[in-house]
Amino acid sequence: MKNSVLSALAQRTAPPPISWLMKTALARPKLISLAAGFTDNATLPTEISRRLLNEILRAPKTGRPALQYGTTAGEPDLRQLTATHLQKLDGGHDRAHSPEHVIITGGSQQLLYMTIEALCDEGDIVLVEDPTYFVFLSILQSRGLQARGVKLERDGLDLAHLKKVLTQLKQSGELRRVKALYLVTYFQNPTGATTSLTKKSAALKLLKKFERAAGHPLYLIEDAAYRELRFDHGADVPTALTLPGARDRVVYAGTYSKPFATGVRVGFGILPEPLFTAVLRIKGNHDFGTANLLQHLLTRALATRRYDRHVATVQKNYARKARVMQRALAEHFPAAVEIWAAAGGLYFWARLPTNISTGVKSKVFQTALQNDVLYVPGELCYAEDPARRKPDHEMRLSFGVASEADIRKGIKRLGDALKKFVT
Amino acid sequence: MKNSVLSALAQRTAPPPISWLMKTALARPKLISLAAGFTDNATLPTEISRRLLNEILRAPKTGRPALQYGTTAGEPDLRQLTATHLQKLDGGHDRAHSPEHVIITGGSQQLLYMTIEALCDEGDIVLVEDPTYFVFLSILQSRGLQARGVKLERDGLDLAHLKKVLTQLKQSGELRRVKALYLVTYFQNPTGATTSLTKKSAALKLLKKFERAAGHPLYLIEDAAYRELRFDHGADVPTALTLPGARDRVVYAGTYSKPFATGVRVGFGILPEPLFTAVLRIKGNHDFGTANLLQHLLTRALATRRYDRHVATVQKNYARKARVMQRALAEHFPAAVEIWAAAGGLYFWARLPTNISTGVKSKVFQTALQNDVLYVPGELCYAEDPARRKPDHEMRLSFGVASEADIRKGIKRLGDALKKFVT
Repeated sequence: MKNSVLSALAQRTAPPPISWLMKTALARPKLISLAAGFTDNATLPTEISRRLLNEILRAPKTGRPALQYGTTAGEPDLRQLTATHLQKLDGGHDRAHSPEHVIITGGSQQLLYMTIEALCDEGDIVLVEDPTYFVFLSILQSRGLQARGVKLERDGLDLAHLKKVLTQLKQSGELRRVKALYLVTYFQNPTGATTSLTKKSAALKLLKKFERAAGHPLYLIEDAAYRELRFDHGADVPTALTLPGARDRVVYAGTYSKPFATGVRVGFGILPEPLFTAVLRIKGNHDFGTANLLQHLLTRALATRRYDRHVATVQKNYARKARVMQRALAEHFPAAVEIWAAAGGLYFWARLPTNISTGVKSKVFQTALQNDVLYVPGELCYAEDPARRKPDHEMRLSFGVASEADIRKGIKRLGDALKKFVT
Repeated sequence: MKNSVLSALAQRTAPPPISWLMKTALARPKLISLAAGFTDNATLPTEISRRLLNEILRAPKTGRPALQYGTTAGEPDLRQLTATHLQKLDGGHDRAHSPEHVIITGGSQQLLYMTIEALCDEGDIVLVEDPTYFVFLSILQSRGLQARGVKLERDGLDLAHLKKVLTQLKQSGELRRVKALYLVTYFQNPTGATTSLTKKSAALKLLKKFERAAGHPLYLIEDAAYRELRFDHGADVPTALTLPGARDRVVYAGTYSKPFATGVRVGFGILPEPLFTAVLRIKGNHDFGTANLLQHLLTRALATRRYDRHVATVQKNYARKARVMQRALAEHFPAAVEIWAAAGGLYFWARLPTNISTGVKSKVFQTALQNDVLYVPGELCYAEDPARRKPDHEMRLSFGVASEADIRKGIKRLGDALKKFVT
């Protein structure tokens, strides 16, 4: 899109890679998509939402505030419930989250966008996991920022590599351009990996060590979008916010959309100053507040605990679908493919031998398409980083929206395709 | 907010002027606010929304799509209904609006933000009405853009002044930085003025004339946020989109929030290429689509015509409240105050003699506060423009949210305050 009237930002902004995949899916009606990051249709809370909305809209006293403008930061009750909810997820950690630092947003995506707006000028650098959430990469690219990849292991960030990357940036004089490290800490998109609290703590300490050379704070942006989609009811990993000294350095991006309903786009952020005030002002210009009706719906869902009960159902459902995918993978995928099976979220990560490409132009992708099955090529999840060749031998497999039958069929089709290239 | 870690954008982004006013209002419980741009509480469609949402969520077939992710551009049905709706407002104009160029957004505010992102680089210039919508000025200021004011008359833009401003910008070599003219064309915020189609046409022709010197298209951004809040059922002024040759140059920003419910934040834009594609991609990074539940609610409201019936009620209600305000102004305001009484929207504009300040630090404002009544000082609605002194002798008076009794009382209190300074 070359046209001199457009801003530099617009000229940089590429079409989302996933939109091409979605068009491809629509063009082949028999195609099974293991690509889409959509949530499961059958567990969407139609009846719960209907009841909650009836309760809210039945009386003018509760109905009118839900249909009126609110404040830019969000509904006070929802901000309070969000702080409490998070504390509960953190196992009742005694460092209470302050509702004063909570901002309600149009999904966590909007929070990520505004945080980057508040923090980064053109040419700045953000460290990301290698691979990472591709829409976050689109934000960086659109805004003229650089991403630097830090290797990801099955239990989260490769700390030795983080140190190496920071050291290199210091040596090259680029550290003053670094503003943040972005981590998808729970059941990561695309790999399903979860970062342990120990690793979060170590990453935060490493960032602190390099702050003097950077000349400013180095933030940890913790994207917890998939946190509540875990398969067991055991202990959750606490957020980086609970770490000592983390309060001034951690931005937490959470969402109610994925656990409750993706059509009810309500996310939230917890931010330290001066970021909180900056993001709040920016939101004043974006939309001066997320739709109040959605906020009131979630407020009531949380307050009546119907949110919790619904999330428990959703968790069981994804756990079952993930097991179905895991069994199908064991049965149909060649042994040479390494599988990262997640304990939550929506995705498995499949790694082929490094010499086999899975990109959109690869034989693997084309053969899969001929077999009527779609996946997200791993290469789409890697930043443009001059320090390494972009890996392209992986695939993201989603069990979110496909039915159990389609997961089985889809994995068989994909396995059949793979067997032509791998043993 | 000085802190080197923040972006230049964040450092420029000022707190919204209105937030100070709102805090002031909260601190004085007996205060009558004629400042807030909120809509009328009593006419909020609680029962209509309840019924529509019940219809949607009752069956999985309609309920699940409303609770699932949609597409970035918005629900196809809503895009189609929006195109049809607009054509109807335009009096069945034969140049049909194409749903292909409609994008659904989180209120029209988000559309304005993204349009400016797509069009303007730091240092670029946007022409605005003098005075204009103050949150639009905040967007420009935050993004490092310059605003240039074009005088406003009671029937819209002062065309001779527009020509003068464009000519001066050409002479000073700044025309290549000009990207657009922003007009709030219906019952303008803050003055209530409506721009005639003749004036829109002449403005568009003037912009075209200067395009060669600018070296690129000069867009007309038509903000029609208040369009449907008109008081009579007579003919509406058609949008600039209906003008010959306007298709490639007009961005139309509309909203369902104000006529239907401000807690249901759904706006829309109609944009020509290359702006449509640019804004769509930017929205992919902001939030990849407005909450589907809200979109489905409006789709059903429009399709069943309950939207139209509700808007008719709302119009009658505001017409009545505007009459109440007009009578109270005639009774209580000094004769030296010139009133622009609107034929729609939410605001009247009151102009004091030019030597009497109405700003937040003025005696008039302080006396009004002591009398427990709040207005928006006119100076907040003027761009920073080196070409003229900022007028500060005006006030925006809203009859949107205050009850009829409070409108009467508020105007009397304000009139009493004014009588100490004006005759």
